[in-house]
Amino acid sequence: MKEKNINFPVKQVLNRVVEDHTIQNEQKSPPPGRGEGMKETEGTEGVLYLIPCPISEGESVWSVLPASNGRVMSELDYFIVENVRSARRFLSKSGLKVSELEFRELSEHTTDPRGIDVLCAPIVAGRSAGVISEAGVPGVADPGAMVVRRCHELGVRVVPLVGPSSIILAMMASGLNGQSFAFNGYLPVKDAGKAIRNLERRALSEGQAQMFIETPYRNVKLVEQLLLTLGGETRLTIAVDLTGADEFVETHGVREWRGRKLPELHKKPAIFVIGA
Amino acid sequence: MKEKNINFPVKQVLNRVVEDHTIQNEQKSPPPGRGEGMKETEGTEGVLYLIPCPISEGESVWSVLPASNGRVMSELDYFIVENVRSARRFLSKSGLKVSELEFRELSEHTTDPRGIDVLCAPIVAGRSAGVISEAGVPGVADPGAMVVRRCHELGVRVVPLVGPSSIILAMMASGLNGQSFAFNGYLPVKDAGKAIRNLERRALSEGQAQMFIETPYRNVKLVEQLLLTLGGETRLTIAVDLTGADEFVETHGVREWRGRKLPELHKKPAIFVIGA
Repeated sequence: MKEKNINFPVKQVLNRVVEDHTIQNEQKSPPPGRGEGMKETEGTEGVLYLIPCPISEGESVWSVLPASNGRVMSELDYFIVENVRSARRFLSKSGLKVSELEFRELSEHTTDPRGIDVLCAPIVAGRSAGVISEAGVPGVADPGAMVVRRCHELGVRVVPLVGPSSIILAMMASGLNGQSFAFNGYLPVKDAGKAIRNLERRALSEGQAQMFIETPYRNVKLVEQLLLTLGGETRLTIAVDLTGADEFVETHGVREWRGRKLPELHKKPAIFVIGA
Repeated sequence: MKEKNINFPVKQVLNRVVEDHTIQNEQKSPPPGRGEGMKETEGTEGVLYLIPCPISEGESVWSVLPASNGRVMSELDYFIVENVRSARRFLSKSGLKVSELEFRELSEHTTDPRGIDVLCAPIVAGRSAGVISEAGVPGVADPGAMVVRRCHELGVRVVPLVGPSSIILAMMASGLNGQSFAFNGYLPVKDAGKAIRNLERRALSEGQAQMFIETPYRNVKLVEQLLLTLGGETRLTIAVDLTGADEFVETHGVREWRGRKLPELHKKPAIFVIGA
Protein backbone atom coordinates (compact mmCIF):
# COMPACT_ATOMS: atom_id res chain seq x y z
CA MET A 1 0.00 0.00 0.00
CA LYS A 2 2.92 2.35 0.79
CA GLU A 3 4.16 1.58 -2.75
CA LYS A 4 0.81 2.51 -4.24
CA ASN A 5 0.47 5.74 -2.28
CA ILE A 6 3.95 6.97 -3.13
CA ASN A 7 3.52 6.40 -6.86
CA PHE A 8 -0.14 7.45 -7.05
CA PRO A 9 -0.35 10.93 -8.66
CA VAL A 10 -1.74 13.17 -5.92
CA LYS A 11 -4.03 15.02 -8.36
CA GLN A 12 -5.78 11.77 -9.29
CA VAL A 13 -6.12 10.82 -5.63
CA LEU A 14 -7.67 14.20 -4.85
CA ASN A 15 -10.23 13.82 -7.64
CA ARG A 16 -11.09 10.30 -6.54
CA VAL A 17 -11.36 11.43 -2.94
CA VAL A 18 -13.56 14.46 -3.66
CA GLU A 19 -15.75 12.20 -5.82
CA ASP A 20 -16.18 9.70 -2.95
CA HIS A 21 -16.98 12.67 -0.79
CA THR A 22 -19.76 14.07 -3.01
CA ILE A 23 -21.24 10.62 -3.28
CA GLN A 24 -21.00 9.52 0.33
CA ASN A 25 -20.97 12.60 2.54
CA GLU A 26 -24.59 13.73 2.81
CA GLN A 27 -24.31 16.33 5.61
CA LYS A 28 -22.20 19.25 4.33
CA SER A 29 -21.33 22.64 5.79
CA PRO A 30 -19.02 25.47 4.67
CA PRO A 31 -15.40 25.52 5.79
CA PRO A 32 -15.05 27.37 9.11
CA GLY A 33 -13.56 30.85 9.31
CA ARG A 34 -10.25 31.29 11.10
CA GLY A 35 -10.01 32.82 14.57
CA GLU A 36 -6.83 33.82 16.39
CA GLY A 37 -6.58 30.22 17.55
CA MET A 38 -6.28 29.01 13.97
CA LYS A 39 -2.86 28.86 12.36
CA GLU A 40 -2.59 30.35 8.87
CA THR A 41 -2.63 27.87 5.98
CA GLU A 42 -1.92 28.20 2.29
CA GLY A 43 -4.83 28.56 -0.11
CA THR A 44 -8.27 27.26 0.79
CA GLU A 45 -7.09 23.87 1.99
CA GLY A 46 -8.41 22.44 5.20
CA VAL A 47 -6.07 21.65 8.08
CA LEU A 48 -6.01 18.50 10.20
CA TYR A 49 -5.81 19.53 13.87
CA LEU A 50 -4.76 16.89 16.42
CA ILE A 51 -6.76 17.73 19.53
CA PRO A 52 -5.77 16.20 22.89
CA CYS A 53 -8.31 15.49 25.62
CA PRO A 54 -7.87 14.62 29.34
CA ILE A 55 -6.37 11.24 30.28
CA SER A 56 -7.94 10.90 33.72
CA GLU A 57 -11.65 10.37 34.46
CA GLY A 58 -13.28 13.49 35.91
CA GLU A 59 -10.22 15.62 35.18
CA SER A 60 -11.44 19.13 34.37
CA VAL A 61 -10.64 19.95 30.75
CA TRP A 62 -8.85 23.28 31.16
CA SER A 63 -6.61 22.11 33.98
CA VAL A 64 -4.73 19.91 31.50
CA LEU A 65 -5.21 21.76 28.19
CA PRO A 66 -3.95 25.21 27.09
CA ALA A 67 -6.77 27.74 26.66
CA SER A 68 -5.69 28.35 23.06
CA ASN A 69 -6.76 24.80 22.15
CA GLY A 70 -10.32 25.97 22.83
CA ARG A 71 -10.03 28.69 20.21
CA VAL A 72 -8.98 26.16 17.58
CA MET A 73 -11.67 23.69 18.66
CA SER A 74 -14.39 26.34 18.48
CA GLU A 75 -13.50 27.03 14.82
CA LEU A 76 -14.08 23.43 13.77
CA ASP A 77 -17.34 21.73 12.82
CA TYR A 78 -15.95 18.40 11.59
CA PHE A 79 -14.35 15.85 13.91
CA ILE A 80 -12.78 12.48 13.16
CA VAL A 81 -12.93 10.61 16.47
CA GLU A 82 -12.09 7.27 18.03
CA ASN A 83 -15.40 7.22 19.93
CA VAL A 84 -18.27 9.60 19.15
CA ARG A 85 -19.86 9.50 22.61
CA SER A 86 -16.67 10.31 24.54
CA ALA A 87 -15.67 12.96 21.97
CA ARG A 88 -19.08 14.63 22.36
CA ARG A 89 -18.72 14.53 26.14
CA PHE A 90 -15.25 16.09 25.94
CA LEU A 91 -16.31 18.87 23.55
CA SER A 92 -19.43 19.80 25.53
CA LYS A 93 -17.36 19.83 28.75
CA SER A 94 -15.10 22.24 26.83
CA GLY A 95 -18.09 24.50 26.20
CA LEU A 96 -18.84 23.70 22.53
CA LYS A 97 -22.34 23.28 21.05
CA VAL A 98 -21.97 19.65 19.96
CA SER A 99 -25.39 19.56 18.25
CA GLU A 100 -23.98 21.64 15.38
CA LEU A 101 -20.93 19.44 14.85
CA GLU A 102 -20.36 16.54 12.48
CA PHE A 103 -18.63 13.45 13.86
CA ARG A 104 -17.15 10.56 11.92
CA GLU A 105 -15.90 7.54 13.87
CA LEU A 106 -12.49 6.07 13.17
CA SER A 107 -11.89 2.65 14.67
CA GLU A 108 -9.22 -0.02 14.23
CA HIS A 109 -11.79 -1.53 11.82
CA THR A 110 -11.58 1.50 9.51
CA THR A 111 -8.49 -0.01 7.94
CA ASP A 112 -9.28 0.10 4.23
CA PRO A 113 -7.73 3.04 2.37
CA ARG A 114 -11.06 4.08 0.83
CA GLY A 115 -12.62 4.39 4.31
CA ILE A 116 -9.78 6.71 5.32
CA ASP A 117 -10.09 8.64 2.04
CA VAL A 118 -13.76 9.30 2.72
CA LEU A 119 -12.86 10.76 6.13
CA CYS A 120 -10.15 12.93 4.53
CA ALA A 121 -12.28 14.10 1.60
CA PRO A 122 -13.92 17.09 3.36
CA ILE A 123 -10.46 18.31 4.42
CA VAL A 124 -9.12 18.11 0.88
CA ALA A 125 -12.25 20.00 -0.16
CA GLY A 126 -11.29 22.83 2.20
CA ARG A 127 -12.98 21.94 5.49
CA SER A 128 -10.64 21.77 8.51
CA ALA A 129 -11.03 18.80 10.83
CA GLY A 130 -10.12 17.84 14.38
CA VAL A 131 -8.94 14.39 15.40
CA ILE A 132 -9.91 13.33 18.92
CA SER A 133 -8.74 10.14 20.59
CA GLU A 134 -10.42 8.17 23.40
CA ALA A 135 -7.95 9.75 25.86
CA GLY A 136 -4.88 11.96 25.66
CA VAL A 137 -3.10 12.92 22.45
CA PRO A 138 -4.43 11.58 19.13
CA GLY A 139 -2.17 9.87 16.62
CA VAL A 140 -0.02 8.09 19.20
CA ALA A 141 -1.12 4.51 19.87
CA ASP A 142 -4.57 5.11 18.36
CA PRO A 143 -6.16 4.80 14.89
CA GLY A 144 -5.89 8.57 14.34
CA ALA A 145 -2.42 7.92 12.93
CA MET A 146 -4.00 6.43 9.78
CA VAL A 147 -5.73 9.74 9.01
CA VAL A 148 -2.57 11.72 9.74
CA ARG A 149 -0.57 9.44 7.44
CA ARG A 150 -3.10 9.85 4.62
CA CYS A 151 -3.24 13.64 5.07
CA HIS A 152 0.53 13.84 4.55
CA GLU A 153 0.12 11.84 1.33
CA LEU A 154 -2.69 14.17 0.22
CA GLY A 155 -0.66 17.30 1.00
CA VAL A 156 -2.95 18.38 3.87
CA ARG A 157 -1.30 20.36 6.65
CA VAL A 158 -1.24 18.59 10.03
CA VAL A 159 -1.13 20.66 13.25
CA PRO A 160 -0.63 18.92 16.63
CA LEU A 161 -1.95 20.73 19.72
CA VAL A 162 -0.43 20.50 23.22
CA GLY A 163 -2.06 18.23 25.77
CA PRO A 164 -1.54 15.41 28.27
CA SER A 165 0.34 12.30 27.16
CA SER A 166 0.79 9.56 29.75
CA ILE A 167 3.91 8.51 27.84
CA ILE A 168 5.74 11.81 28.21
CA LEU A 169 4.38 12.53 31.74
CA ALA A 170 5.57 9.09 32.92
CA MET A 171 8.95 9.61 31.28
CA MET A 172 9.36 13.06 32.91
CA ALA A 173 8.50 11.68 36.35
CA SER A 174 10.47 8.43 36.02
CA GLY A 175 13.98 9.84 36.46
CA LEU A 176 15.06 7.19 33.95
CA ASN A 177 16.99 7.83 30.75
CA GLY A 178 15.05 10.48 28.80
CA GLN A 179 17.96 10.73 26.34
CA SER A 180 16.94 7.34 25.01
CA PHE A 181 13.60 5.65 25.61
CA ALA A 182 11.09 3.51 23.73
CA PHE A 183 7.34 3.12 24.00
CA ASN A 184 6.35 -0.46 23.17
CA GLY A 185 2.56 -0.30 23.45
CA TYR A 186 0.84 -3.34 24.95
CA LEU A 187 2.82 -6.36 26.03
CA PRO A 188 1.81 -9.52 24.14
CA VAL A 189 -0.75 -11.49 26.18
CA LYS A 190 0.95 -14.70 25.07
CA ASP A 191 4.42 -15.20 26.58
CA ALA A 192 4.58 -11.79 28.29
CA GLY A 193 7.48 -13.12 30.36
CA LYS A 194 9.69 -13.43 27.30
CA ALA A 195 8.70 -9.93 26.17
CA ILE A 196 9.58 -8.53 29.62
CA ARG A 197 13.00 -10.22 29.56
CA ASN A 198 13.68 -8.83 26.08
CA LEU A 199 12.75 -5.29 27.16
CA GLU A 200 14.95 -5.62 30.26
CA ARG A 201 17.85 -6.84 28.13
CA ARG A 202 17.54 -3.81 25.83
CA ALA A 203 17.13 -1.43 28.80
CA LEU A 204 20.32 -2.73 30.42
CA SER A 205 22.47 -3.34 27.32
CA GLU A 206 21.54 -0.14 25.43
CA GLY A 207 20.60 2.04 28.41
CA GLN A 208 17.30 2.72 26.63
CA ALA A 209 14.34 3.04 29.03
CA GLN A 210 11.51 0.73 27.93
CA MET A 211 7.88 1.80 28.39
CA PHE A 212 4.75 -0.31 27.97
CA ILE A 213 1.12 -0.49 29.01
CA GLU A 214 -1.43 -3.17 29.86
CA THR A 215 -5.21 -3.35 29.76
CA PRO A 216 -6.17 -1.90 33.19
CA TYR A 217 -7.86 -5.04 34.51
CA ARG A 218 -4.59 -6.97 34.00
CA ASN A 219 -2.35 -4.38 35.73
CA VAL A 220 -2.03 -6.25 39.03
CA LYS A 221 -1.13 -9.52 37.29
CA LEU A 222 1.42 -7.69 35.15
CA VAL A 223 3.17 -6.08 38.13
CA GLU A 224 3.36 -9.45 39.88
CA GLN A 225 4.96 -10.87 36.75
CA LEU A 226 7.36 -7.91 36.46
CA LEU A 227 8.55 -8.34 40.07
CA LEU A 228 9.06 -12.07 39.48
CA THR A 229 10.78 -11.71 36.11
CA LEU A 230 13.01 -8.62 36.35
CA GLY A 231 16.43 -8.56 38.06
CA GLY A 232 16.63 -7.03 41.54
CA GLU A 233 18.86 -4.14 40.41
CA THR A 234 16.67 -3.20 37.43
CA ARG A 235 14.69 0.00 37.96
CA LEU A 236 10.93 -0.03 37.48
CA THR A 237 8.63 2.99 37.25
CA ILE A 238 4.95 2.47 38.01
CA ALA A 239 2.77 5.43 36.97
CA VAL A 240 -0.97 5.33 37.74
CA ASP A 241 -3.83 7.74 36.92
CA LEU A 242 -1.48 10.51 35.76
CA THR A 243 -2.98 14.04 36.16
CA GLY A 244 -5.81 12.43 38.15
CA ALA A 245 -6.88 12.46 41.80
CA ASP A 246 -5.13 9.13 42.46
CA GLU A 247 -1.95 10.05 40.61
CA PHE A 248 0.97 7.85 41.64
CA VAL A 249 4.46 7.78 40.11
CA GLU A 250 7.40 6.07 41.75
CA THR A 251 10.66 4.55 40.53
CA HIS A 252 12.52 1.95 42.58
CA GLY A 253 14.82 -0.98 42.07
CA VAL A 254 12.83 -4.20 41.60
CA ARG A 255 14.28 -5.62 44.83
CA GLU A 256 12.92 -2.63 46.72
CA TRP A 257 9.52 -2.86 44.96
CA ARG A 258 9.24 -6.48 46.14
CA GLY A 259 9.31 -5.24 49.76
CA ARG A 260 6.88 -2.36 49.23
CA LYS A 261 3.12 -2.01 49.43
CA LEU A 262 1.99 -1.58 45.82
CA PRO A 263 -0.39 1.25 44.77
CA GLU A 264 -4.01 0.49 43.86
CA LEU A 265 -3.70 -0.55 40.20
CA HIS A 266 -6.79 -2.58 39.38
CA LYS A 267 -8.73 -1.13 36.40
CA LYS A 268 -6.77 2.14 36.64
CA PRO A 269 -4.85 3.60 33.67
CA ALA A 270 -1.19 2.78 34.27
CA ILE A 271 2.08 2.91 32.38
CA PHE A 272 5.31 1.12 33.21
CA VAL A 273 8.97 1.88 32.53
CA ILE A 274 11.99 -0.43 32.86
CA GLY A 275 15.38 1.25 33.18
CA ALA A 276 19.01 0.73 34.15
CA MET B 1 26.23 4.33 42.27
CA LYS B 2 22.85 2.60 41.75
CA GLU B 3 24.11 -0.08 44.16
CA LYS B 4 24.98 2.49 46.78
CA ASN B 5 21.70 4.36 46.48
CA ILE B 6 19.60 1.24 46.77
CA ASN B 7 21.42 -0.03 49.88
CA PHE B 8 21.88 3.35 51.57
CA PRO B 9 19.42 3.61 54.49
CA VAL B 10 17.10 6.48 53.48
CA LYS B 11 16.97 7.87 57.03
CA GLN B 12 20.78 8.31 57.06
CA VAL B 13 20.65 9.92 53.62
CA LEU B 14 18.00 12.35 54.79
CA ASN B 15 20.10 13.37 57.81
CA ARG B 16 23.20 13.78 55.68
CA VAL B 17 21.23 15.78 53.14
CA VAL B 18 19.58 18.11 55.66
CA GLU B 19 23.02 18.60 57.25
CA ASP B 20 24.56 19.57 53.87
CA HIS B 21 21.61 21.89 53.45
CA THR B 22 22.08 23.77 56.73
CA ILE B 23 25.76 24.12 55.97
CA GLN B 24 25.54 25.14 52.35
CA ASN B 25 22.15 26.76 51.73
CA GLU B 26 22.40 30.35 53.01
CA GLN B 27 19.21 31.81 51.55
CA LYS B 28 16.24 30.13 53.27
CA SER B 29 12.50 30.75 53.23
CA PRO B 30 9.51 28.90 54.73
CA PRO B 31 7.80 26.14 52.76
CA PRO B 32 5.05 27.60 50.53
CA GLY B 33 1.37 27.20 51.40
CA ARG B 34 -0.79 25.14 49.08
CA GLY B 35 -3.28 26.73 46.67
CA GLU B 36 -5.88 24.95 44.57
CA GLY B 37 -3.17 24.41 41.98
CA MET B 38 -1.14 22.31 44.42
CA LYS B 39 -1.79 18.61 44.69
CA GLU B 40 -2.18 17.26 48.25
CA THR B 41 0.86 15.50 49.70
CA GLU B 42 1.44 13.43 52.82
CA GLY B 43 2.88 15.09 55.88
CA THR B 44 5.04 18.19 55.60
CA GLU B 45 7.25 16.88 52.84
CA GLY B 46 8.03 19.04 49.88
CA VAL B 47 6.98 18.00 46.38
CA LEU B 48 9.09 18.10 43.22
CA TYR B 49 7.01 19.68 40.44
CA LEU B 50 8.18 19.21 36.85
CA ILE B 51 7.24 22.47 35.11
CA PRO B 52 7.23 22.63 31.29
CA CYS B 53 7.98 25.84 29.41
CA PRO B 54 7.47 26.81 25.73
CA ILE B 55 9.60 25.10 23.07
CA SER B 56 9.46 27.84 20.44
CA GLU B 57 11.09 31.29 20.68
CA GLY B 58 8.52 34.04 21.20
CA GLU B 59 5.72 31.55 21.81
CA SER B 60 3.33 33.12 24.34
CA VAL B 61 3.40 31.08 27.56
CA TRP B 62 -0.31 30.44 28.05
CA SER B 63 -0.95 29.38 24.48
CA VAL B 64 1.01 26.17 25.13
CA LEU B 65 0.55 25.66 28.90
CA PRO B 66 -2.61 24.89 30.92
CA ALA B 67 -3.65 27.78 33.16
CA SER B 68 -3.52 25.46 36.19
CA ASN B 69 0.27 25.20 35.81
CA GLY B 70 0.36 28.89 36.77
CA ARG B 71 -1.37 28.16 40.06
CA VAL B 72 1.26 25.56 40.95
CA MET B 73 4.13 27.80 39.80
CA SER B 74 2.86 30.74 41.88
CA GLU B 75 3.00 28.58 45.05
CA LEU B 76 6.70 27.83 44.61
CA ASP B 77 9.70 29.90 45.67
CA TYR B 78 12.45 27.39 44.94
CA PHE B 79 13.41 26.36 41.41
CA ILE B 80 16.01 23.89 40.17
CA VAL B 81 16.72 24.96 36.61
CA GLU B 82 18.88 24.11 33.63
CA ASN B 83 19.58 27.79 32.96
CA VAL B 84 18.79 30.54 35.46
CA ARG B 85 18.45 33.35 32.92
CA SER B 86 15.97 31.53 30.65
CA ALA B 87 14.04 30.20 33.68
CA ARG B 88 13.73 33.77 35.06
CA ARG B 89 12.54 34.99 31.66
CA PHE B 90 9.94 32.22 31.45
CA LEU B 91 8.62 32.81 34.98
CA SER B 92 8.37 36.58 34.59
CA LYS B 93 6.61 36.11 31.23
CA SER B 94 4.22 33.90 33.20
CA GLY B 95 3.53 36.79 35.58
CA LEU B 96 5.62 35.73 38.61
CA LYS B 97 7.73 38.11 40.73
CA VAL B 98 11.10 36.47 40.05
CA SER B 99 12.96 38.73 42.50
CA GLU B 100 11.45 36.79 45.40
CA LEU B 101 12.42 33.37 44.05
CA GLU B 102 15.47 31.21 44.69
CA PHE B 103 17.13 29.55 41.71
CA ARG B 104 19.71 26.77 41.72
CA GLU B 105 21.30 25.78 38.45
CA LEU B 106 21.54 22.17 37.42
CA SER B 107 23.88 21.48 34.55
CA GLU B 108 25.38 18.34 33.04
CA HIS B 109 28.36 19.24 35.24
CA THR B 110 26.30 18.78 38.41
CA THR B 111 26.93 15.06 38.21
CA ASP B 112 28.25 14.22 41.68
CA PRO B 113 25.64 12.76 44.06
CA ARG B 114 26.44 15.32 46.78
CA GLY B 115 25.70 18.18 44.38
CA ILE B 116 22.30 16.65 43.62
CA ASP B 117 21.68 16.01 47.33
CA VAL B 118 22.29 19.67 48.12
CA LEU B 119 19.66 20.62 45.53
CA CYS B 120 17.21 18.09 47.01
CA ALA B 121 17.87 19.02 50.64
CA PRO B 122 15.32 21.89 50.86
CA ILE B 123 12.63 19.56 49.43
CA VAL B 124 13.38 16.86 51.99
CA ALA B 125 13.20 19.64 54.61
CA GLY B 126 9.64 20.42 53.46
CA ARG B 127 10.06 23.06 50.77
CA SER B 128 8.45 22.22 47.41
CA ALA B 129 10.52 22.84 44.30
CA GLY B 130 9.94 23.31 40.59
CA VAL B 131 12.23 21.89 37.92
CA ILE B 132 12.48 23.97 34.75
CA SER B 133 14.34 22.89 31.63
CA GLU B 134 15.85 25.06 28.89
CA ALA B 135 12.82 24.30 26.72
CA GLY B 136 9.79 22.02 26.89
CA VAL B 137 9.25 19.35 29.51
CA PRO B 138 11.90 18.83 32.20
CA GLY B 139 13.32 15.40 32.99
CA VAL B 140 13.32 14.19 29.38
CA ALA B 141 16.66 14.60 27.64
CA ASP B 142 17.88 17.13 30.22
CA PRO B 143 19.79 17.02 33.54
CA GLY B 144 16.53 17.42 35.50
CA ALA B 145 16.23 13.63 35.40
CA MET B 146 19.08 13.36 37.97
CA VAL B 147 17.03 15.33 40.51
CA VAL B 148 13.91 13.30 39.77
CA ARG B 149 15.85 10.07 40.22
CA ARG B 150 17.27 11.22 43.56
CA CYS B 151 13.86 12.39 44.78
CA HIS B 152 12.43 8.91 44.20
CA GLU B 153 15.30 7.48 46.26
CA LEU B 154 14.62 10.03 49.02
CA GLY B 155 10.88 9.29 49.05
CA VAL B 156 9.95 12.74 47.71
CA ARG B 157 6.76 12.91 45.66
CA VAL B 158 7.28 13.85 41.99
CA VAL B 159 4.45 15.57 40.06
CA PRO B 160 4.79 16.14 36.28
CA LEU B 161 2.76 19.01 34.77
CA VAL B 162 1.36 19.07 31.22
CA GLY B 163 3.22 21.05 28.56
CA PRO B 164 4.73 20.98 25.08
CA SER B 165 7.10 18.15 24.19
CA SER B 166 8.58 18.20 20.69
CA ILE B 167 8.91 14.41 20.97
CA ILE B 168 5.21 13.73 21.47
CA LEU B 169 4.05 16.55 19.15
CA ALA B 170 6.28 15.22 16.36
CA MET B 171 5.05 11.67 16.96
CA MET B 172 1.38 12.79 16.88
CA ALA B 173 1.89 14.66 13.61
CA SER B 174 4.11 12.04 11.95
CA GLY B 175 1.44 9.47 11.12
CA LEU B 176 4.12 6.86 11.84
CA ASN B 177 3.78 3.96 14.28
CA GLY B 178 2.76 5.48 17.64
CA GLN B 179 2.19 1.96 19.00
CA SER B 180 5.95 1.50 19.03
CA PHE B 181 8.49 4.31 18.80
CA ALA B 182 11.86 5.23 20.26
CA PHE B 183 13.52 8.57 21.00
CA ASN B 184 17.28 8.26 20.50
CA GLY B 185 18.45 11.76 21.47
CA TYR B 186 21.33 13.20 19.43
CA LEU B 187 22.93 11.20 16.64
CA PRO B 188 26.63 10.59 17.26
CA VAL B 189 28.73 13.23 15.44
CA LYS B 190 31.23 10.54 14.57
CA ASP B 191 29.94 7.98 12.03
CA ALA B 192 26.37 9.33 11.93
CA GLY B 193 25.86 7.35 8.72
CA LYS B 194 26.23 4.06 10.56
CA ALA B 195 23.84 5.26 13.31
CA ILE B 196 21.27 6.25 10.65
CA ARG B 197 21.50 2.83 8.98
CA ASN B 198 21.06 1.10 12.36
CA LEU B 199 17.98 3.18 13.17
CA GLU B 200 16.52 2.47 9.73
CA ARG B 201 17.16 -1.27 10.19
CA ARG B 202 15.28 -1.24 13.50
CA ALA B 203 12.46 0.90 12.06
CA LEU B 204 11.94 -1.52 9.18
CA SER B 205 12.60 -4.86 10.95
CA GLU B 206 10.69 -4.08 14.19
CA GLY B 207 8.23 -1.51 12.80
CA GLN B 208 9.39 0.80 15.60
CA ALA B 209 9.50 4.48 14.56
CA GLN B 210 12.90 5.98 15.38
CA MET B 211 13.18 9.61 16.52
CA PHE B 212 16.31 11.70 16.92
CA ILE B 213 17.51 15.30 17.04
CA GLU B 214 20.56 17.26 15.94
CA THR B 215 22.16 20.51 17.09
CA PRO B 216 20.22 23.12 15.03
CA TYR B 217 23.22 24.44 13.10
CA ARG B 218 23.85 20.90 11.75
CA ASN B 219 20.23 20.23 10.68
CA VAL B 220 20.77 20.92 6.97
CA LYS B 221 23.83 18.67 6.83
CA LEU B 222 21.91 15.93 8.68
CA VAL B 223 18.96 16.00 6.26
CA GLU B 224 21.34 15.78 3.30
CA GLN B 225 22.92 12.75 4.93
CA LEU B 226 19.51 11.19 5.70
CA LEU B 227 18.38 11.54 2.06
CA LEU B 228 21.64 9.99 0.85
CA THR B 229 21.69 7.16 3.41
CA LEU B 230 18.07 6.01 3.81
CA GLY B 231 16.23 3.73 1.37
CA GLY B 232 13.78 5.35 -1.06
CA GLU B 233 10.75 3.59 0.45
CA THR B 234 11.62 4.49 4.05
CA ARG B 235 9.38 7.19 5.51
CA LEU B 236 10.95 10.29 7.03
CA THR B 237 9.22 12.91 9.17
CA ILE B 238 10.81 16.35 9.39
CA ALA B 239 9.33 18.52 12.17
CA VAL B 240 10.58 22.11 12.59
CA ASP B 241 9.76 24.83 15.14
CA LEU B 242 6.79 22.92 16.60
CA THR B 243 4.14 25.21 18.17
CA GLY B 244 6.01 28.18 16.63
CA ALA B 245 5.29 30.63 13.82
CA ASP B 246 7.38 28.60 11.35
CA GLU B 247 5.94 25.24 12.38
CA PHE B 248 6.49 22.60 9.71
CA VAL B 249 5.70 18.88 9.95
CA GLU B 250 5.63 16.58 6.96
CA THR B 251 6.11 12.86 6.42
CA HIS B 252 7.10 11.48 3.01
CA GLY B 253 8.98 8.57 1.55
CA VAL B 254 12.70 9.38 1.20
CA ARG B 255 12.44 9.12 -2.60
CA GLU B 256 9.74 11.79 -2.56
CA TRP B 257 11.74 13.99 -0.13
CA ARG B 258 14.66 13.91 -2.58
CA GLY B 259 12.48 15.64 -5.19
CA ARG B 260 11.02 18.24 -2.82
CA LYS B 261 12.05 21.70 -1.74
CA LEU B 262 13.16 21.29 1.89
CA PRO B 263 11.85 23.58 4.68
CA GLU B 264 14.11 26.23 6.23
CA LEU B 265 16.02 24.19 8.83
CA HIS B 266 19.20 26.09 9.61
CA LYS B 267 19.55 26.88 13.34
CA LYS B 268 15.87 26.00 13.93
CA PRO B 269 14.76 23.42 16.52
CA ALA B 270 13.93 20.26 14.58
CA ILE B 271 13.16 16.62 15.28
CA PHE B 272 13.29 13.73 12.84
CA VAL B 273 11.46 10.40 12.66
CA ILE B 274 12.28 7.35 10.53
CA GLY B 275 9.44 4.88 9.94
CA ALA B 276 8.27 1.96 7.81
